[in-house]
Amino acid sequence: MGLKTAQQYKDSLNDGRVVYYRGQRVENVAAHPDVSVCVDTMAVDYEMAERPEYRDLAVVHDAELGEEISRYYHLPKDGDDLLKQFDLIVAATRLGDGFIPLAHDIGADALNAVSITANTLGNTDYIARIEAYRKYLKQNDLAVVAAVTDVKGDRMLRPSDPKQSHGDYYIHVVDRNDKGLLVRGAKIHITGAAYANEFFVIPCRAMTEADADYAVAFAIPANTKGIRQVCRPFHAHITPLEFPNRRPVRVHTDSLIIFDDVFVPWERVFLCGECKAAATLVYNFALMHRRTGCAYRIPMSEQLLGVAQAIAEYNGVADAPHAREKITDIVIYLETLRSLSRAACLDHVTYGGIPVPNPVTTNIAKYHFAHGYHDVVRAIQDLAGGLLVTAPTFKDYQLPELHADIEKYLSARTGVSTEQRLRMFDLIRRITGADRETIVLHGEGSPQAERITIYAEARKTIAECKRMVEEQAEIPR
Amino acid sequence: MGLKTAQQYKDSLNDGRVVYYRGQRVENVAAHPDVSVCVDTMAVDYEMAERPEYRDLAVVHDAELGEEISRYYHLPKDGDDLLKQFDLIVAATRLGDGFIPLAHDIGADALNAVSITANTLGNTDYIARIEAYRKYLKQNDLAVVAAVTDVKGDRMLRPSDPKQSHGDYYIHVVDRNDKGLLVRGAKIHITGAAYANEFFVIPCRAMTEADADYAVAFAIPANTKGIRQVCRPFHAHITPLEFPNRRPVRVHTDSLIIFDDVFVPWERVFLCGECKAAATLVYNFALMHRRTGCAYRIPMSEQLLGVAQAIAEYNGVADAPHAREKITDIVIYLETLRSLSRAACLDHVTYGGIPVPNPVTTNIAKYHFAHGYHDVVRAIQDLAGGLLVTAPTFKDYQLPELHADIEKYLSARTGVSTEQRLRMFDLIRRITGADRETIVLHGEGSPQAERITIYAEARKTIAECKRMVEEQAEIPR
Amino acid sequence: MGLKTAQQYKDSLNDGRVVYYRGQRVENVAAHPDVSVCVDTMAVDYEMAERPEYRDLAVVHDAELGEEISRYYHLPKDGDDLLKQFDLIVAATRLGDGFIPLAHDIGADALNAVSITANTLGNTDYIARIEAYRKYLKQNDLAVVAAVTDVKGDRMLRPSDPKQSHGDYYIHVVDRNDKGLLVRGAKIHITGAAYANEFFVIPCRAMTEADADYAVAFAIPANTKGIRQVCRPFHAHITPLEFPNRRPVRVHTDSLIIFDDVFVPWERVFLCGECKAAATLVYNFALMHRRTGCAYRIPMSEQLLGVAQAIAEYNGVADAPHAREKITDIVIYLETLRSLSRAACLDHVTYGGIPVPNPVTTNIAKYHFAHGYHDVVRAIQDLAGGLLVTAPTFKDYQLPELHADIEKYLSARTGVSTEQRLRMFDLIRRITGADRETIVLHGEGSPQAERITIYAEARKTIAECKRMVEEQAEIPR
Amino acid sequence: MGLKTAQQYKDSLNDGRVVYYRGQRVENVAAHPDVSVCVDTMAVDYEMAERPEYRDLAVVHDAELGEEISRYYHLPKDGDDLLKQFDLIVAATRLGDGFIPLAHDIGADALNAVSITANTLGNTDYIARIEAYRKYLKQNDLAVVAAVTDVKGDRMLRPSDPKQSHGDYYIHVVDRNDKGLLVRGAKIHITGAAYANEFFVIPCRAMTEADADYAVAFAIPANTKGIRQVCRPFHAHITPLEFPNRRPVRVHTDSLIIFDDVFVPWERVFLCGECKAAATLVYNFALMHRRTGCAYRIPMSEQLLGVAQAIAEYNGVADAPHAREKITDIVIYLETLRSLSRAACLDHVTYGGIPVPNPVTTNIAKYHFAHGYHDVVRAIQDLAGGLLVTAPTFKDYQLPELHADIEKYLSARTGVSTEQRLRMFDLIRRITGADRETIVLHGEGSPQAERITIYAEARKTIAECKRMVEEQAEIPR
Repeated sequence: MGLKTAQQYKDSLNDGRVVYYRGQRVENVAAHPDVSVCVDTMAVDYEMAERPEYRDLAVVHDAELGEEISRYYHLPKDGDDLLKQFDLIVAATRLGDGFIPLAHDIGADALNAVSITANTLGNTDYIARIEAYRKYLKQNDLAVVAAVTDVKGDRMLRPSDPKQSHGDYYIHVVDRNDKGLLVRGAKIHITGAAYANEFFVIPCRAMTEADADYAVAFAIPANTKGIRQVCRPFHAHITPLEFPNRRPVRVHTDSLIIFDDVFVPWERVFLCGECKAAATLVYNFALMHRRTGCAYRIPMSEQLLGVAQAIAEYNGVADAPHAREKITDIVIYLETLRSLSRAACLDHVTYGGIPVPNPVTTNIAKYHFAHGYHDVVRAIQDLAGGLLVTAPTFKDYQLPELHADIEKYLSARTGVSTEQRLRMFDLIRRITGADRETIVLHGEGSPQAERITIYAEARKTIAECKRMVEEQAEIPR
Repeated sequence: MGLKTAQQYKDSLNDGRVVYYRGQRVENVAAHPDVSVCVDTMAVDYEMAERPEYRDLAVVHDAELGEEISRYYHLPKDGDDLLKQFDLIVAATRLGDGFIPLAHDIGADALNAVSITANTLGNTDYIARIEAYRKYLKQNDLAVVAAVTDVKGDRMLRPSDPKQSHGDYYIHVVDRNDKGLLVRGAKIHITGAAYANEFFVIPCRAMTEADADYAVAFAIPANTKGIRQVCRPFHAHITPLEFPNRRPVRVHTDSLIIFDDVFVPWERVFLCGECKAAATLVYNFALMHRRTGCAYRIPMSEQLLGVAQAIAEYNGVADAPHAREKITDIVIYLETLRSLSRAACLDHVTYGGIPVPNPVTTNIAKYHFAHGYHDVVRAIQDLAGGLLVTAPTFKDYQLPELHADIEKYLSARTGVSTEQRLRMFDLIRRITGADRETIVLHGEGSPQAERITIYAEARKTIAECKRMVEEQAEIPR
Repeated sequence: MGLKTAQQYKDSLNDGRVVYYRGQRVENVAAHPDVSVCVDTMAVDYEMAERPEYRDLAVVHDAELGEEISRYYHLPKDGDDLLKQFDLIVAATRLGDGFIPLAHDIGADALNAVSITANTLGNTDYIARIEAYRKYLKQNDLAVVAAVTDVKGDRMLRPSDPKQSHGDYYIHVVDRNDKGLLVRGAKIHITGAAYANEFFVIPCRAMTEADADYAVAFAIPANTKGIRQVCRPFHAHITPLEFPNRRPVRVHTDSLIIFDDVFVPWERVFLCGECKAAATLVYNFALMHRRTGCAYRIPMSEQLLGVAQAIAEYNGVADAPHAREKITDIVIYLETLRSLSRAACLDHVTYGGIPVPNPVTTNIAKYHFAHGYHDVVRAIQDLAGGLLVTAPTFKDYQLPELHADIEKYLSARTGVSTEQRLRMFDLIRRITGADRETIVLHGEGSPQAERITIYAEARKTIAECKRMVEEQAEIPR
Repeated sequence: MGLKTAQQYKDSLNDGRVVYYRGQRVENVAAHPDVSVCVDTMAVDYEMAERPEYRDLAVVHDAELGEEISRYYHLPKDGDDLLKQFDLIVAATRLGDGFIPLAHDIGADALNAVSITANTLGNTDYIARIEAYRKYLKQNDLAVVAAVTDVKGDRMLRPSDPKQSHGDYYIHVVDRNDKGLLVRGAKIHITGAAYANEFFVIPCRAMTEADADYAVAFAIPANTKGIRQVCRPFHAHITPLEFPNRRPVRVHTDSLIIFDDVFVPWERVFLCGECKAAATLVYNFALMHRRTGCAYRIPMSEQLLGVAQAIAEYNGVADAPHAREKITDIVIYLETLRSLSRAACLDHVTYGGIPVPNPVTTNIAKYHFAHGYHDVVRAIQDLAGGLLVTAPTFKDYQLPELHADIEKYLSARTGVSTEQRLRMFDLIRRITGADRETIVLHGEGSPQAERITIYAEARKTIAECKRMVEEQAEIPR
């Protein structure tokens, strides 16, 4: 046993799991034309462990097992361990062209959160179970995701509130016996669930006494009887309107996971009725998971900085003062995220005996990138210009009766080919989406065009106001 | 003659024009499965004139012609005329579900800009020609768009700069005789051109003496020999993944228009070599066109406010303080746009004898909506939540084995049906696009979740800082 | 009777009123070395009526009285009246070097709000009393301010809440007989009260049944027995450290007004126990008063634009791109305020038969200038540079052993004298205050210096990110 | 020799230096009623070294000298040294109630920048001189400040540009012989210079060949013949209008330093004509000095957070949602500054063999606090309310005829005394200054009052917009 190869991982997914995509049952996710693209993205994690240049980062020697394991399943001992795991996620996401592979990281966040909770409770059963499960994951190198967000129903009401339309909006225990539990409910937004081996199911909020049946955490294989998943649609392929690209497309999908009275054996149950510990568990998961989020947003942000600079250069405006200011803003966005995230590892705190990233800094870092993201997108769309939306497609470009004209008219700065520019527009559209936003920015003239006009038109007002204050300051003419 | 019906307008488009879409020649734009949806959007302008409830707004009696004409082609006499035209665009765009019909408005902006320029030059030939053309437009109720933005090449260089890769980046005169001109070049981002009757072609920048051949303005039918158009791709239909909707889809497309040595008769030439007047022309066009832009963004912004409030209510969070703050911000965005735009009409100035909206206020209004738009999108995506991206599709919803579960689990507040919520997500996705932005906001917890955590985690720091300043202020314990 | 002269107004203030300033009783406010400067500021309103160039704006003919009265006491009939009153406040504040004279405007806001409330209640007694009082004000041209904000105590509690430390935090009726009322309480932040003839006392919040005694509105002369005022300190004079300036200093002070069981005759009582009407009254006052606020902030904002441009020019940086962007931002700030405020008059609504400015637009305009003000101050301090804080004083400048050196070393751009620059710094310090803010901006280098460094230092990162996305877009090297 | 006591430092200042303050020559800065307050502030650095609880932080054992020296003069060896120096500045500034003592820190920044420059040049003379000078500073524990910013004249012109009004806007060499140099010019904004022992004079910009005489760096005692200083005015005392406070006032002043052909011996010259090294020197100084700036702004920001929370509590609004949001924003401001600054130390780079804080992160941190500061001030003034400006003074509070009423009416929440609240207003006014800003925020109602009104007034518009999109989404009524 030990580390799995990418192929072993892919083979493991043909296990009878019930997955729907675009209204159809998927037989084998690894063989489906679209979902397999997500599988390939997750497989990057396994490939890294096989590549010598990443091995030191991706793999650690486990003293107890005497074998090599994924770094993700290694229990961190100090800030340096947190930083290495952080660096691993950054490197993996760079390799994934901005997509985190996801095979182990979120699972590891849940694993450590469950350990902290068990330690905090001092519940030796749970401690033993989670350690056994950690060992199982290490030895089998399984892909595990965390299933956290319940569908919630009315968000203003608690899970057990009788005013909820029904009692199943949050995963809960509907029956139990000496072998285990029966659970029911639905989890939403579960990225990678369709092609993970196991799920860590944990509560998504604090619970009261009345919610005791909802205070339940467990791990379960994806193909367990009674589990069905519905995936959100995604773009698995470069379209025929875009320039072809031999680089693999990277993408993930998220699942709605429905639990129809699913059986969970006791040895996989890590919380069951200890309502106050639900908050501890979700708090610690959120904390570590937000750190994970900060890590993988760094290569995403590098990509944003890259396309901003590239298209500004291709359009020939990279040295205009307003363009430099926008580039500078994106640098500040990226490097603030990086510094805050690293500082969060170094200024770590210890919960339940396990080092975790600094909670204030981590949350500020996560808030920073979420809150500032739209401004970065705006800057990119501003620098790209209206052609981002209106440029002819690759299909037009191929037409003999249009090819030469598109080559001629869509070129810009000497030294930049038309193809180069059109390819960059394709990439930016794949990243920043919304046509409307670009049209709103550039329709009737760019924001900078308006600013220049405002300044020019206001010259008379400006001069009058200046004269007024010169009189007030008694400045002689 | 006089006002055209919507059907007459559609019939007029089958005129041999050369249009490409997604790499294929379009035979008749009004009959094409996709482009006809744009044609229907433009036809809303003609329908309004036929509908009694809009007739007073859409139609004016022309004293000279003794017949009713489109208000757009009526030369404004005062601020009230400007405001009525403004109200017409707002009403038309509301009717177009957020899309301005575009049959006359941009053409009218160019028409008036050309009139101002001719008056300012005092060139009686041009004045006579533009008046004759205005009469022709009134009598034939033609759909006209303005073709303004050239493809530009290196934007740091003037049109005639020999360092440009070639001399055709801006439309220019390549030959002339006693009948007219031959022009060459390409215009980009020309919304509605594929289904307009005529184009107003005007310069997009100030020109110097050296650029005299580029200082050219004219009107020309869309099917003139030598003109080819390439349309940008667009979404003409509700996809099978979305809930069906009997309401017509509204959308436009933009053209790259290539002019291969196209002949323009002198009676349609409104500028030819008067290089200094190029600035006057584009300045006045930009000014009026930005006012048009402000007008049609009002119903767009009403739509944004509507979806924000609707989804906040459906999700059951409309009364949370942070949700109210976001709704208030969108109200401020909308009403600031409305007030600035109206004030621009009322504080109008007069150029070349024609009243035009206030240049400072108009540019501020246009800048306001462009600059603030991404913040509004962020607020909507924030209020909508991650389900905006991860909700099951209509195809999943229809599947017998999933239908009941989706009904059960995707419901939220009592009194709001699951279908209602899913339909609103469909609409918001059609408006705000980008998956990534929503994922960045909500992945690992919403921004508000982070803010709450930051506040909670910082309580100790806050208390210490408070104690520190109480000591500094000598406040007794 | 009829319009008062400025001198008559000043003479009227020596009426035995009880006013404290900096811990001392003021005998006659019009004769006090500091408070008289405020009196002179208020007198600008009376001077305007005497000056021919302002007479049309400041004065209207009252048909009923057959004499000329202050425009402020004219009941507005339409949007045009609102706009003229608005223009009057703008002109008066320009004349006051950025300070609104305040003799009638806030009083007029209260007068009209009381009229609307009486009309809405349909209370014929109140209607008769307020009309009689309006006539009295017109005929005597009195200076009236509104006393609105109570000291409040615990703001989370209602006025009558027994948990309040005492029952006097809001003005209320403590006794009544057939002649009138006795009232007790204290009002705070009452600008101009120390040198007004009368106060309009109205509630500052909505009231419930339990608060009936607090739902009281009345007018009262400033020298009524039992009324004491405490003024906040202010700067009435150019200091010896500043360049002398023959232009009069303009300034106001605000009062804490204490009512010690003050008698109010019934003919001056406009609300007494109608608890629901308290909300109507304060709502309408706030609405009109915010419009007044928007008006006088326009000359204040013109002053801000003026000093920004002046000091940028004097420092020789007015044409640097980042300086132009800051100036443009201030233009947008000013013109948005102006357009919103004017649009609020034109899109007026009618309450209680009286036209009032549009409530949404007015509140947006008021929010706009308050929320954006600190950004404008930052821009000015940024453009002014650290010398704003560190420049030598006029006292140093006068010293023979320093004069020549200060002249030599503090000069900047050719054509700008050292005195001119130092005078402008004096003015800006008087306007924008805070030393600390300037030091925070400029200590260790200006914000723009940091941005330039960030950009320069990040060049390598930018290039790497660009290379990364070029690989992702398959752009050949 | 070795560490100086605070008294020794103060005694050392009576050295004949020429200092002007408010237009008068200061005989002995340590004995002057105002300037001595600054001297006491600088003396905090010396006191720290004497206090056991700070000794480990403030003092290091110098192996070469075999004695204890100030940590500031210890050459940093690694990131940990950078962090300890950072922590020292934070601790010192906390002790200084938000004022950095300044005795050694800026001098140390210049010292290290000169060392880096000498090492980079590989100039063994300079290396020997700077090491000798470092030893001298260590042994004498001198207070040294850096004199960097020249008065500049026309900022668009280089120092030697003949278009400058004269050649003395930047310090430069006017003569030289075998003993040393004669220098002339003026430095501005030099904090602490009036009470430092020595100045490090270095260029403030990059130089060209033509500017070779301006590329000069040296150290010089403050009392050297030909040096005169003019101090900016400052507030050295709590005014009689404020509540008395036994805590010492902390403050600094900045000097204009005029150099009238001052002699500098060669052993104190560290750059002379190597024009390209001027950029290296100022770059490295700015980098280290900005890190220093980040450090001392942390206690300043803690103070801002403290007063925000204190006054919100005293006013009884600390738990209102909008107040919590403002507090959260200040927490984010403070903690982002702290994390960025610490990350800059840990991600240090090495220049000229000496570790320096990360340039990108340091500049982002410095930009962050400067750019965001006005928003924090706005939040504090918003939470404090109008009383910040209008509250009665201590002089009024003491008056027998007002005391009881002020006690009664200015109280707010139970458990908070009136004195406590008034003292906190005093402190906030000392920190945030500007009356005008508070009046702009709160005049005519707080920003939150307007937001609430906007929301309430827009309810109808909101509902209409919602209905519109429900129709667009075909949601059944």
